[in-house]
Amino acid sequence: MKLIFDINGGDNKSEIIKGAIEASNEFDTDIILVGREDFIKENLQELDYNKDKIEIVDAKENIENNEDPAFALRRKKDSSIVIAMTLLKEKKGDALISAGSTGALLAGGLFIVGRIKGIKRAVLPTTIPGMKSNTMVIDSGANMDTNPELLLEFATLGEVFLKEYYKIDSPKVGLLNVGSEEGKGNSLYKETYKVLKDSNINFVGNIEARDIMNNDVDLLVCDGFDGNILLKSIEGVVDFAVKNVFHSLEKSDLDDESKALFSKFLMTKFKNLDAKEVGGTILLGIDGNIIKAHGNSDERAIKNAAKYAISIVESNVVKKIKDKVEGK
Amino acid sequence: MKLIFDINGGDNKSEIIKGAIEASNEFDTDIILVGREDFIKENLQELDYNKDKIEIVDAKENIENNEDPAFALRRKKDSSIVIAMTLLKEKKGDALISAGSTGALLAGGLFIVGRIKGIKRAVLPTTIPGMKSNTMVIDSGANMDTNPELLLEFATLGEVFLKEYYKIDSPKVGLLNVGSEEGKGNSLYKETYKVLKDSNINFVGNIEARDIMNNDVDLLVCDGFDGNILLKSIEGVVDFAVKNVFHSLEKSDLDDESKALFSKFLMTKFKNLDAKEVGGTILLGIDGNIIKAHGNSDERAIKNAAKYAISIVESNVVKKIKDKVEGK
Repeated sequence: MKLIFDINGGDNKSEIIKGAIEASNEFDTDIILVGREDFIKENLQELDYNKDKIEIVDAKENIENNEDPAFALRRKKDSSIVIAMTLLKEKKGDALISAGSTGALLAGGLFIVGRIKGIKRAVLPTTIPGMKSNTMVIDSGANMDTNPELLLEFATLGEVFLKEYYKIDSPKVGLLNVGSEEGKGNSLYKETYKVLKDSNINFVGNIEARDIMNNDVDLLVCDGFDGNILLKSIEGVVDFAVKNVFHSLEKSDLDDESKALFSKFLMTKFKNLDAKEVGGTILLGIDGNIIKAHGNSDERAIKNAAKYAISIVESNVVKKIKDKVEGK
Repeated sequence: MKLIFDINGGDNKSEIIKGAIEASNEFDTDIILVGREDFIKENLQELDYNKDKIEIVDAKENIENNEDPAFALRRKKDSSIVIAMTLLKEKKGDALISAGSTGALLAGGLFIVGRIKGIKRAVLPTTIPGMKSNTMVIDSGANMDTNPELLLEFATLGEVFLKEYYKIDSPKVGLLNVGSEEGKGNSLYKETYKVLKDSNINFVGNIEARDIMNNDVDLLVCDGFDGNILLKSIEGVVDFAVKNVFHSLEKSDLDDESKALFSKFLMTKFKNLDAKEVGGTILLGIDGNIIKAHGNSDERAIKNAAKYAISIVESNVVKKIKDKVEGK
């Protein structure tokens, strides 16, 4: 097992190095660190690691979040993403972990590593916690303009992933919508309902945004624009509720002991609602294992992303998606 | 001032009668109750009211939520919505309050009462609470398939309403989107950005769903499909957070006194996040005062909706929208 780490992407580059080294030590994995060589070497001086398991590949540039991904990929040949993707494409490593620009990762995945044959788009699944079960949302923001056939493709990618990686026998697939009955929604969703109903997917119908968390749907299919609105509004409310409640708690008449007690209790509860606790997520549809970690990942998040990457490699899920798409 | 109440719509018809009577007593208003005459008379027996201020108009049918609104309007001539809308159109009352089917209200508003000349669609504004200020969302679910010109119309309707009813001088208008920079989103939102930027609206740019509650934007413009996803996901998270936190509180090791104290504190806080606390909302774009109350409105909610209706009539906001649209 060999993991490739993009060191130039992400907000905390030293933390990525620390997380990668910790993953190498704890999971006994070979690692390739792709980034500015002098910076990496300087950081390594303070760390305990096994020299035989570590390789450094110099990459002087980085693709920033505000750059046009496709343009930047062509222009910045010496960026860590281009070099790391090329290593993955050449099978020099089993998986790539990056906290860099999502757009650049998607574009690099499509143009350098390549799509799975028969798949048109790559998607980023995101998981929403729930009362009964978690719900995976596809697409969570990679594809802005879609059509019913693409939404069926998203459903297929998600279904195989849930079966093969999460070992869910027959994942329940819902369609995000404004009402539960057939015929609800705009023309995209009305048409997609029909396409999903006629497919081999275990389609359970429309799901309203307010019912996601108390439903047992495993996969929620939607347009990338709507998925992003959904996920970010959840993030916004949680953030608002936390600030609002803690602010009021602080100003309340409760005694200090009660305040501390309630504070601690609330912290634990709201943590469960926070999607950031997961280390990373796979780019589905790409013919390779690319793991997107959060931009602000710290050492622990990167180690968790590495652990996830290892389990993705071991599950062989990309090969299984290929077999499914090719009808094997 | 005379208010028309739709008694057949909504989940709790006796509560609507009670709320209407209470509004008549408290605000000294004439009222018309449109619904099954025998049912209304039976309910009135238990209430204190001024006979001179109350008129009953018999209406035997109701348009249900699951009916096709346009079809039901034509077929159910004896429904409370059709009769109440006709009374409003004929200026027999100043405003109509209904807890019935939103679809039927919108369709009835368009086909019976009529649109404001120059306006293509009717919209339902909904208000999201925030740290700095509240944000009005238009459209919150009336219009599923839109275009940039319609979104500009929504912005205009909202702007005039915020100016004339809420007395906000120059309302800040944002566009719901997946990123803050220009050029983000799908083709509808990219194009709408340009249209809003070139208009006379005080357009402040794209607003991400997670930033709505900590922003000072007065009006958030979006497609009805996306607005509905946004509002229902907020509703879902609040509901989930409440259940989750209260469930854990009940099961926790805290003593009974702390549990009760904490429960009470949380109830107050979460109530602030609940959009249902507002009694009703106006249908903007219609040439008349139609107030939509929640389907599960109780006596208090109906009384609040009536209070809101009176202030809408007094603000003369529909006339002011007409002047604005006609360029006066």
